[in-house]
Amino acid sequence: MDNFEFYNPTRIIFGKDTIGSLASLVPEGTRILLLYGGGSVKTNGVYDQVRTALAGRELAEFSGVEANPSYETCMAAVETIRQERAGFILALGGGSVFDAAKFIAAAARYSGGDPWKICVDRKPLKAALPWGGVLTLPATASEMNSGSVISRTSTREKLFFFDPLVFPIFSILDPQATYGLPSRQTANGVIDAFVHVTERYLTFPNESFLVDRLAESILGTLMELGPKVLLAPRDYPIRANLMWAATLAHNGLLDAGMPQDWASHMIGHELTALYGVDHARSLAVVLPALLRHQIVHKREKLVQFGQQILGIREGSAERRSEGVVEGIENFFRAMGAGTRLSDYGIPASDCRTIAERAVLHQGVLGERKDLDAAAVEEILRLAARP
Amino acid sequence: MDNFEFYNPTRIIFGKDTIGSLASLVPEGTRILLLYGGGSVKTNGVYDQVRTALAGRELAEFSGVEANPSYETCMAAVETIRQERAGFILALGGGSVFDAAKFIAAAARYSGGDPWKICVDRKPLKAALPWGGVLTLPATASEMNSGSVISRTSTREKLFFFDPLVFPIFSILDPQATYGLPSRQTANGVIDAFVHVTERYLTFPNESFLVDRLAESILGTLMELGPKVLLAPRDYPIRANLMWAATLAHNGLLDAGMPQDWASHMIGHELTALYGVDHARSLAVVLPALLRHQIVHKREKLVQFGQQILGIREGSAERRSEGVVEGIENFFRAMGAGTRLSDYGIPASDCRTIAERAVLHQGVLGERKDLDAAAVEEILRLAARP
Repeated sequence: MDNFEFYNPTRIIFGKDTIGSLASLVPEGTRILLLYGGGSVKTNGVYDQVRTALAGRELAEFSGVEANPSYETCMAAVETIRQERAGFILALGGGSVFDAAKFIAAAARYSGGDPWKICVDRKPLKAALPWGGVLTLPATASEMNSGSVISRTSTREKLFFFDPLVFPIFSILDPQATYGLPSRQTANGVIDAFVHVTERYLTFPNESFLVDRLAESILGTLMELGPKVLLAPRDYPIRANLMWAATLAHNGLLDAGMPQDWASHMIGHELTALYGVDHARSLAVVLPALLRHQIVHKREKLVQFGQQILGIREGSAERRSEGVVEGIENFFRAMGAGTRLSDYGIPASDCRTIAERAVLHQGVLGERKDLDAAAVEEILRLAARP
Repeated sequence: MDNFEFYNPTRIIFGKDTIGSLASLVPEGTRILLLYGGGSVKTNGVYDQVRTALAGRELAEFSGVEANPSYETCMAAVETIRQERAGFILALGGGSVFDAAKFIAAAARYSGGDPWKICVDRKPLKAALPWGGVLTLPATASEMNSGSVISRTSTREKLFFFDPLVFPIFSILDPQATYGLPSRQTANGVIDAFVHVTERYLTFPNESFLVDRLAESILGTLMELGPKVLLAPRDYPIRANLMWAATLAHNGLLDAGMPQDWASHMIGHELTALYGVDHARSLAVVLPALLRHQIVHKREKLVQFGQQILGIREGSAERRSEGVVEGIENFFRAMGAGTRLSDYGIPASDCRTIAERAVLHQGVLGERKDLDAAAVEEILRLAARP
């Protein structure tokens, strides 16, 4: 169990009909920038609830934040903040809008030159605008962490930063706001949350007995309720448990004392940057291949996964760990996600290029920091099999 | 799954040799009041490590905080703060010192008359001194919550308050600081943490599937490692997992969406106030009796406890829930705690008086708010059996 620091000052307001509490959460005396994406907040009722809750307050708007939010869009929002003299950002949407809010909050107060350096240099921020959000898509836990992933369209880069100054002041999570999500987005959210947990859990044992149990709690909940929510999208308890699971999957709780991998995310980011693959689906491709490549190094935790979550208690450790990888791949498929490069039209001949970019951007990968470009290419070739 | 709010801004620094980080955590430019108890921090090395880390800083001291910290002692510390013009409290010790720090922090900035009203009226505070701590006894989670229990010696009252202004700014948790604890205190900490979880978990199902799993993770860890730590008090992974388990047992994580009982604590407080029973041991007496009294109302969660934690998967629900209560009582005994009133010399003839005081101080009890003085007396009579 490694040393750790835990700090998470975000206030969560969770439950039915909680959006009305906005009036007491958003600061008075400053203009609020409503930040959202393509308009789904207008069809799911969230936008109207927010306008009602904030009636009489000075509001400005910036819409059009895309999936995998771009530096270019964020900088346009920064310009709106300057013109409108907004002092608080209210993000309405999913992880993309929340990640964008963080970059915008940092960039609006950045004094170090080109704000893209926030992602490139990852130096501690000196200031950021305060912000909060109303979440409509559980997936990234951006609603309760200090991390953000931003894409630069012109260079096809997808980079991240994190800083304690960009924790949301508050996030409102009303599971009812997720009832109308397209099933593809619901499924993506479940997969994303699942892989946030495996990035910590599927490494090697380090006597973090308790945090292992917490991770298994979240993994088990996602595997049990994920397929169910596709059949019962308006079931409140299922939606509520999945929403809170996605937040806890990546709010720092599972970092406590645990080794961390993140290779699936880093390789997956390249699939998104180069081919526009949904973030979650890039993970559904990379994780099974990574686990097969690292099956010896990750064996102990794979066997533990099998025993604690899938009830696999018999057979050799080799066979049991193979069964777990198959189980995870089947789970992704049950969530409707293809798990091979070919499912997304990505040719096997691109494996080397993707691998080299991943290592160029993020360095050698994995919990042992030993996955170089050659290893990443081998992983991708496993994902290129039919 | 009920609506909930989660907010916990305390920074946790956890792990080996972390006390040296104090210098960067404690604010500069103000005098620090070191607050501690009977001197165990001087024998376990914590006091010296703190003085070394804060060399050159302006320090004042107040020692003598007792188990079940008293209003009278706290008010003496407030007087020291005024005389020394201290602007920050640094608590060194266990839950008693941490609870005292909260009351002192609130009382030092209280403008509403007699500070005992903080516990009696429980009105939102307007201000409190900032404070942090170095934890030496995992048990109460006072290191990461906003609650405090204070006893008034003159009236034999034991009352609590909680307020967001008394969250510690930071808490340092070095499991090595717990190596030298007397086994009685170690055991008390495990029992206290265990009952913090059961106060939420052993109520009735409300579709909080995920938080149920998290609660089971903590309960299972405590039941597995609790007896082991008594045999291996210098085993770092065991100490570390137990320390973090005690924090998570009562830092708000398990409040999320769950019903809550707290009758065991409220009845137990009277046993402490009237007879000086250790807090944890008061819980070891009351909880098994409460569960037997409420065995029908709590049956579903007791059966779930048996299945998820004790592996009890056969037999009638009635027999399985009885087996769980026996299992919990055996666990307390394995931790060295007596589970009957007679173990602490409390006569059965006092049951009515204790019950009346509990309901007088806290109102009707339990997750259904239906345990009146007559019901509490019945519970205590179950604890009075040989």
